[in-house]
Amino acid sequence: MSVTAAKGFRAAGVAAGIKDSGGPDLALVVNDGPRRAAAGVFTANRVKAAPVLWSQQVLRGGRVSSVVLNSGGANACTGPLGFQDTHATAEEAASALGHGAAEVAVCSTGLIGTRLPMDKLLPGVGAAAERLSEYGGEKAALAIKTTDTVHKTSVARGEGGWTVGGMAKGAGMLAPSLATMLVVLTTDADVDAAGLDAALREASRTTFDRIDSDGCLSTNDTVLLLASGSSEVAPEQGEFTEAVRTVCDDLAQQLIHDAEGASKDIRIEVVNAADEGDAVEVGRSIARNNLLKCAVHGEDPNWGRVLSAIGTTGAAFEPDRLNVAVNGVWVCQNGSVGEDRDKVDMRFREVRITADLAEGSASAVIWTNDLTADYVHENSAYSS
Amino acid sequence: MSVTAAKGFRAAGVAAGIKDSGGPDLALVVNDGPRRAAAGVFTANRVKAAPVLWSQQVLRGGRVSSVVLNSGGANACTGPLGFQDTHATAEEAASALGHGAAEVAVCSTGLIGTRLPMDKLLPGVGAAAERLSEYGGEKAALAIKTTDTVHKTSVARGEGGWTVGGMAKGAGMLAPSLATMLVVLTTDADVDAAGLDAALREASRTTFDRIDSDGCLSTNDTVLLLASGSSEVAPEQGEFTEAVRTVCDDLAQQLIHDAEGASKDIRIEVVNAADEGDAVEVGRSIARNNLLKCAVHGEDPNWGRVLSAIGTTGAAFEPDRLNVAVNGVWVCQNGSVGEDRDKVDMRFREVRITADLAEGSASAVIWTNDLTADYVHENSAYSS
Repeated sequence: MSVTAAKGFRAAGVAAGIKDSGGPDLALVVNDGPRRAAAGVFTANRVKAAPVLWSQQVLRGGRVSSVVLNSGGANACTGPLGFQDTHATAEEAASALGHGAAEVAVCSTGLIGTRLPMDKLLPGVGAAAERLSEYGGEKAALAIKTTDTVHKTSVARGEGGWTVGGMAKGAGMLAPSLATMLVVLTTDADVDAAGLDAALREASRTTFDRIDSDGCLSTNDTVLLLASGSSEVAPEQGEFTEAVRTVCDDLAQQLIHDAEGASKDIRIEVVNAADEGDAVEVGRSIARNNLLKCAVHGEDPNWGRVLSAIGTTGAAFEPDRLNVAVNGVWVCQNGSVGEDRDKVDMRFREVRITADLAEGSASAVIWTNDLTADYVHENSAYSS
Repeated sequence: MSVTAAKGFRAAGVAAGIKDSGGPDLALVVNDGPRRAAAGVFTANRVKAAPVLWSQQVLRGGRVSSVVLNSGGANACTGPLGFQDTHATAEEAASALGHGAAEVAVCSTGLIGTRLPMDKLLPGVGAAAERLSEYGGEKAALAIKTTDTVHKTSVARGEGGWTVGGMAKGAGMLAPSLATMLVVLTTDADVDAAGLDAALREASRTTFDRIDSDGCLSTNDTVLLLASGSSEVAPEQGEFTEAVRTVCDDLAQQLIHDAEGASKDIRIEVVNAADEGDAVEVGRSIARNNLLKCAVHGEDPNWGRVLSAIGTTGAAFEPDRLNVAVNGVWVCQNGSVGEDRDKVDMRFREVRITADLAEGSASAVIWTNDLTADYVHENSAYSS
């Protein structure tokens, strides 16, 4: 499934020796066309890794013939030599596959601030090219894992015989852990670069952009959408966008479920906001409140911490009209004590927090995780 | 010492029964004049506790004759009845002390969203009034502790026989843990309300405002500065401000040293910024990066996490000109690998991170703590 669920794509995943563990660490995805249209969204961090700077240039052409992805090193903050490494990676793939280096996107993930072992990575590109297969999607998804405990793939089928598939890695969100989110989506629908770009931006906006595991924006986040056109079906744009959104949503949920050290997935729904911007701002502020995340870990419906997070935003609201529910129990009503907090059952992994701003009719959902001792351990015990 | 180091002040601390533990939980500070000038700064959180709303009104008059402080309950998000409770507290103190309720500031700290036990609190105000003493400063400082492991006091002496003293409680900053920061400063210098206000704002700006233990802005933060004028010395404004700043800085450091669960105090100095605003924005972004705080806990000089935090800001900088030192070792130079990270010794409690933006000549220092399993435990194991 994964990136080879759609027709016109081949993929491979190999162990190039980049990771000390000897596990799979290099993936290759090839678009065999006939169309080779592509779109991408990248991290908003102003400190961008070399592969992000490179791939942004490639995507400007709207055409991608192959993607090289490696785990075991982010190639971020590595200076001009790091950029040369990315360039050499693209050249190696281009040479092995017989197309131009300017059509090769590159993604890297792992520790910031160390050069990649190019003596291992370049032979790995050649080895992956030899193993390319229309059944290689799972192996590719396995090769991009870092702190992920499972690999993540998803597929949606469109009416009339077209498909959107994809793979993801990461222990967080579009602003995740430095473990970094990478996503490659493929489709055999016949969509040009502009259509892909519009669909990807709309789909990301309400999926990857609304998960926020730990508030830390990566230097390497990349989401690519490649179209082969091999189904020879050109879906209506809205229908296509919805299929892309479905796959993005599924992958985003898989990222949250596998976030570093998490024991709870927290769904924060902000309702009755003046506009969507307010709803997202409030949701994100709640999602980034360490004290609330600790309280949820302790299964404590501590709505005071929700109100104190709302209070730090510039959103339209009156403090004495705010309402907060935890798992459906309105523990805060009109900015004060509401239903009995002992009615709240927080034993299950999913916790739903609803914040009612009582101002308008806009809403948004943000997903986050609890803050746990395991998160601290995973991010303090070794460099990642 | 504490709030009774300056002449013209009496204080007391008693166990009123607000805390289940039976420990001291109510403090009273009285200004015996001749001057009773006052200034205050309050939380920027838009969800403000009842005592904050009350005390903001009191401070508008520039005159405070007494301050009632309680631990064991924040009286935040308690609606109109909670505000009535604060009002009744001020009336009780006014009646016991023989001045107007409009001259009584009130501060509360503890759990958000529960009413205070007024049947215990009001008699406690009377009991404290009976125990007022010019040596009562330490007892008052003890009575305002919540998760604090030690009480915090400080004193500075001015030329010519005047004094600034103070007490603080809190496990964080002006935007701290919901354990909430409360500070009362007193002086016998002869300064009017406008002079107090100017000195307090300037002193807070570079002390309490630049500590950020966990990024969570309280509903109850209050810093009060009261002048009795009983030294009959009117210091020059700059000299007075510096004495206030010295006491604020000392108390701010004591708050950081006692932050919940912390094992490291992290001094983040941003240098060569285009202006002070940029320096503060970058410092705060680094201070709020959970991944960096975990890395410091693990004694890992993970400068990539510093760069990724800088990259989320709007400050002026070029990624390839950034330099970062940890404990004096420039592990990142020109946005890339610098000196050997193995040279960094992080065994001691204080960790110094220097971020050089290479843009201008402005600088700022922000203090924060590491993120630890103990912090998670302290904030998940029970409501606070």
